[in-house]
Amino acid sequence: MTQTIGFIGLGRMGLPMAANLLRGGFAVRAYNRTASRAKELSGATVAKSATETAERGGIVISMLTDDAALKAIATDELARALGPGGVHVSMSTVSPDANAYIAESFKKHGVTTIAAPVFGRPEAATAAKLWICVSGDAAAKQRVRPAFDAMGQGVFDFGESIGAANVVKLAGNFLLTAAVEAMAEASALGEKHGIPRATLLNFFTSTLFGSPIYNNYAKRLVDADFDKVGFKAELALKDMRLTRETAVAGRVPMPTLDLLCQRYLTAMANGRGELDATVIAGEVARQAGLEW
Amino acid sequence: MTQTIGFIGLGRMGLPMAANLLRGGFAVRAYNRTASRAKELSGATVAKSATETAERGGIVISMLTDDAALKAIATDELARALGPGGVHVSMSTVSPDANAYIAESFKKHGVTTIAAPVFGRPEAATAAKLWICVSGDAAAKQRVRPAFDAMGQGVFDFGESIGAANVVKLAGNFLLTAAVEAMAEASALGEKHGIPRATLLNFFTSTLFGSPIYNNYAKRLVDADFDKVGFKAELALKDMRLTRETAVAGRVPMPTLDLLCQRYLTAMANGRGELDATVIAGEVARQAGLEW
Amino acid sequence: MTQTIGFIGLGRMGLPMAANLLRGGFAVRAYNRTASRAKELSGATVAKSATETAERGGIVISMLTDDAALKAIATDELARALGPGGVHVSMSTVSPDANAYIAESFKKHGVTTIAAPVFGRPEAATAAKLWICVSGDAAAKQRVRPAFDAMGQGVFDFGESIGAANVVKLAGNFLLTAAVEAMAEASALGEKHGIPRATLLNFFTSTLFGSPIYNNYAKRLVDADFDKVGFKAELALKDMRLTRETAVAGRVPMPTLDLLCQRYLTAMANGRGELDATVIAGEVARQAGLEW
Amino acid sequence: MTQTIGFIGLGRMGLPMAANLLRGGFAVRAYNRTASRAKELSGATVAKSATETAERGGIVISMLTDDAALKAIATDELARALGPGGVHVSMSTVSPDANAYIAESFKKHGVTTIAAPVFGRPEAATAAKLWICVSGDAAAKQRVRPAFDAMGQGVFDFGESIGAANVVKLAGNFLLTAAVEAMAEASALGEKHGIPRATLLNFFTSTLFGSPIYNNYAKRLVDADFDKVGFKAELALKDMRLTRETAVAGRVPMPTLDLLCQRYLTAMANGRGELDATVIAGEVARQAGLEW
Repeated sequence: MTQTIGFIGLGRMGLPMAANLLRGGFAVRAYNRTASRAKELSGATVAKSATETAERGGIVISMLTDDAALKAIATDELARALGPGGVHVSMSTVSPDANAYIAESFKKHGVTTIAAPVFGRPEAATAAKLWICVSGDAAAKQRVRPAFDAMGQGVFDFGESIGAANVVKLAGNFLLTAAVEAMAEASALGEKHGIPRATLLNFFTSTLFGSPIYNNYAKRLVDADFDKVGFKAELALKDMRLTRETAVAGRVPMPTLDLLCQRYLTAMANGRGELDATVIAGEVARQAGLEW
Repeated sequence: MTQTIGFIGLGRMGLPMAANLLRGGFAVRAYNRTASRAKELSGATVAKSATETAERGGIVISMLTDDAALKAIATDELARALGPGGVHVSMSTVSPDANAYIAESFKKHGVTTIAAPVFGRPEAATAAKLWICVSGDAAAKQRVRPAFDAMGQGVFDFGESIGAANVVKLAGNFLLTAAVEAMAEASALGEKHGIPRATLLNFFTSTLFGSPIYNNYAKRLVDADFDKVGFKAELALKDMRLTRETAVAGRVPMPTLDLLCQRYLTAMANGRGELDATVIAGEVARQAGLEW
Repeated sequence: MTQTIGFIGLGRMGLPMAANLLRGGFAVRAYNRTASRAKELSGATVAKSATETAERGGIVISMLTDDAALKAIATDELARALGPGGVHVSMSTVSPDANAYIAESFKKHGVTTIAAPVFGRPEAATAAKLWICVSGDAAAKQRVRPAFDAMGQGVFDFGESIGAANVVKLAGNFLLTAAVEAMAEASALGEKHGIPRATLLNFFTSTLFGSPIYNNYAKRLVDADFDKVGFKAELALKDMRLTRETAVAGRVPMPTLDLLCQRYLTAMANGRGELDATVIAGEVARQAGLEW
Repeated sequence: MTQTIGFIGLGRMGLPMAANLLRGGFAVRAYNRTASRAKELSGATVAKSATETAERGGIVISMLTDDAALKAIATDELARALGPGGVHVSMSTVSPDANAYIAESFKKHGVTTIAAPVFGRPEAATAAKLWICVSGDAAAKQRVRPAFDAMGQGVFDFGESIGAANVVKLAGNFLLTAAVEAMAEASALGEKHGIPRATLLNFFTSTLFGSPIYNNYAKRLVDADFDKVGFKAELALKDMRLTRETAVAGRVPMPTLDLLCQRYLTAMANGRGELDATVIAGEVARQAGLEW
C-alpha cells in the first residue's frame, strides 16, 4: 500500500525533494504558501493549508526558510491533525531551540518531532543526492528512513537530542562559508601578485583541497557570477546569525564566524542580499582594490 | 651517465627528499649545518660546506627553514661555484622577495634560480608524494623536471615570475591553517552542544569536506595529540608572518590571516611553539571553556 | 505639594537613584522583586508589586537588569494603574526594540513611555552625577525633568524617537569597553617590552586621553582587581549582545564589537562572568603570556 | 653663549619644531633632503648635508618619516662629526629596534643616542605644545632638556632602555587609531538608527570621553573632510606596521591592531593613502551602506 507523506514548503529545495518522494513511490500531500508552486509538483495532492497535509498518525515533512516560517505552520491545529503516533520531520535550517520548542509543544498531542536538516544545493536535491543529518527519537527516525532514502544519498545520525542535527547543519554552513572566505582571501593575495585566481584555486582543488565544497565554491569564485544564485546571501546571513545565537548559548567565541557575519552585513547594507552567498568574495576583492 | 645534484638542508623534509633523489638514480652531494644529519643519507657524498655541493654548470637544491637560513648559504661563493649554466632550485618555504633577491644576485654569476616549494608533510616527502609548485625560467624548470619527478607526485607550473610559486605555497599554508581554525571553532560549537568532535568532523570529512587536508587535520584535531609534531607551531607562525608581509606588499587585507597570527602568537607566548601547528585548536577550545 | 514617583528596581543603580529622588523632595513608592532591598530605602513607601507603585496619571520609573526583567513588570495591569496622562520612564539599559514595544502597548492605555538610560557607575548614581540620555515625547520629557535633575548632573536629549537614547546608551557602553580592550592591548605591548602598565597608562591619561572613562578604567586595569565589581562581566556581555542585535538590525558591521563579544564569551565560558567587566584585560594579558 | 643644535628633517613636524628652538634662543643648523624647506626656517644656518649639522660634542636632533630615512642619515660620518660627548636625539616615530641599532653603532664613536618621539599634530608642534616621551641615557636626557622645553609642553621619562619611548609612541598611535575606529563604528550604528553622528559624538566628548584625542578626532569624523590632512593614512599604516612588528617581537596578540592594519591596507589598496588617517571611518561607513 502506498504511504502518504505531507510536505510543507515547496521552495528551491522543497519542490525537488517532494518530487523525489513521488518518484520513490510515496503519495504526497503538498502545501506551499504561494499556491502556484504546488501545481508544479505533478502527481501530488494539493493541500489548502499546512494542516490539510496531515493524516492522523502519519508523517509530515516541513522544509521552510526560517524559524518564523516554521513556527507559523507548526500550530496546535497541525499537531492535532497529526495526532498520537504522528511524526513531524523538521528539515529546515533552523535553530536547535526552534526545533526543541516545537517538539515540546507537539509532544502534548502525541506527535514526535525529529530534526533532519540537509546539505546540498538545489541541484543535489533534484538528483536525490542530499546528505541528511538526523536527530531525535530513534523509532521515528527509523520509520522515516525510506523517505530519507528517496531524497538523499546518505543519512547521518546524531543521536536522540532533538537539536543536535541542527547544530551540525549550522556548523556545516559555517564551515563552507569560512572556506569561501579563506579562498577569497587567498585568491586576492594571488591576484595582487600576478596569479590568476583560476590558476591558484584549480591547483588547490585538484590536490590538497579536492572536496565537493571546495570544488563547487572555487568554481563559483572563479566565475564570480554572483547573479547566478544557488544560495542567497540573505539566507547565509540568517544561518550565520542562527549559528551565532547557538554559539552564544554555548559560550563559544568564534572569531571566524563573526567575520562572516560582518561580510554578510556589508553585503546586505550595500544591496547585495539577493545575490549568491559567495558574493562575500567580491567584498574581499574590493577591499584589496581588485575589480570583480 | 649519472647526474649529480647538490642538496643543501637535510631537515625533516630535506632528508627524505634527498633520499628519493638517490633512489631515483641521481648522485647527491649533501650538506647540512649539523653534519651528523648528512650521515643518515647513505649513498650520498657528504659536502663540508654549502659551496662544496656545487658542480660548475650543475644543479643545487636548497631546502631550509627560513629566509635567514637560505640567505646564509646563498652566497656569492656558492654562485661562483655553480657558475654559468648552473641552476639553483629554491624549495624552501620562503618569501617571494627572498627568492627574487637571491635570483638577482645569482644571475650576475650566470646562475638561474627557480622557485619550487612543496606541499606535504614529512610522510609525503618520504613516500615521494609531494606536490611541487614551480616558477621561474622555463628551460631551467624543464631541466630539473626529472629530479622533481623523483621527489613528488605532481608538478604545477605558475609561470616565469620567480616569486609566484612562493606566493602559492604561502597561500596554501594559509588555507590549511584557516581550515584548522574553522574546524576547531565548529568542533567547539558542537562539543558545547553535546556532539563529540569525532562525530562532527567525521561526518564532514566523509561527505562535503573529504580532501587530504581536511581528513589529515580533522584526525589531528580529534586526537588532540599536539606533542606528535608534523609541522611545528613556530614554523606556522613564520609562514603566517611571511604571508602577511606578502599581503601587506600587495595591499591585501586578510582578516582570517590576522586571526591565525593572533593564534600563533598566543601559542608562542604561552610556551607552545614546539608543539604541532594544530595546537591552535587547543586555544579555541580553551576560550570556550573546554578541556582539550 | 510633594510629587510622588513610582520606582521599580532597586539594584546597585536603582537604590541610590531612588534615594536621590527622596533627597530631592519627591515622595517615592518603591518596588523591588527582592523585598528586603526596599527596606534599605528609608523614607520611601514600600509597594508590594510593580503595579502598586503607580498613581493614576503619575510617573513611574523603571530601572531593571535587562529586557526580560523590564517586560516582566511592564504589564497591562501597570499601564492601567498609570492610566491616561501617566508617564513611564524607562531608565534600564535595554534594547531600543524592547522600549518601542512597551511604548506601543502602554499607549493603548494612554500612558506615554520615554527612554532615559544613564551613564555612570553606582558611585556616580550615589553622588547624583549620572549623565541621563532621553528620547521620546517632548512634553513627557519636560515633566520628568525635575526628577532627572535630582539624579544626574546633565540631561541630553536625543529627540522624539523612543529608541534613540537606548542606541546612544549601547553605543556608549561599546565605546568604553572598546577603550578597555585598546588599553589592555597597549598595556600588554608595553609590559612585554619592560614598561610597567601603570607608567604607560598614567602617561596617556595625564595627557592625550585624560577623560573620566579613560581615567577610571585605566586605574582599574592597573589595579587588576577584578573582584572589586563596578559592572559585572555578564552584564557587559548582555549589553554587547543588545548592541549587536541593534547593529544587525541596522546592517552595520562592527568588528570591534564582535571582538568584545568574543572576549566576554571567553570570560563567561571560563567562569569569570561575576567579575568586573574589565576582566577582559586579564584575557588579553594571558594570551600574551603575562601573569595578571 | 648661544647653544647650537643640529636639526635633520624639516617636514610638517620638523619645521615648526626647529622654529621653536630658534624662538627659544638656540642656534640651529638645519638640513632637509629637499633643500627649499630649509629656507623657510629664517634664522637658521642651512647645512648642505646631515653631517654638516653636527658640531663635535654637540647635539643633533633627527625628525624623519620612517626607519629608512633615519638610517639613511645616521651614518658613521655623522657619528664621527658628532664625536665623543655628542648626543643624537632621535625624535622620529620609528621602531624601537631601529633606534637601538643606531644607538649601538653611534656608541662606537662616543656618541650617545636617546629616543624622544613626540605626540601632537603639526598645530601642536607650532604652538610648542608637544608631549615628548624620552628614554635612554640619563645625563644625555638632562642635557637636552632645555631644547625639549622649547618644543613641548611636557616631557615624560620612560627610563634608560633606548627603545622604551618608541614603544610608548607606537602604543599611543595605536590607541588613538583604535579610538577613531571605535567612534566610527559607534557613529555608523547611530546614523543607521537616525542619530546624526555630530549629536552622538558631541554627547560623548562633552561628558565621558572629553579628552584632546577624542575631541580632536570626533571633530574630524563629524566633518569627514579627509582631504584636510593632519596625519596621512599611509603614515598611519607605517606606524601600525611598526607596532605590529613590535607586538610580534614581544609575542603579543593584538586583534584591534590587526583590524586597524586591515583598514589601512583597504585605504591604500583603494587609492586613499594620501588622505587623512581618519579616512578609515569612511570605510566603516561604506560597509554599513552609508554615504560619507
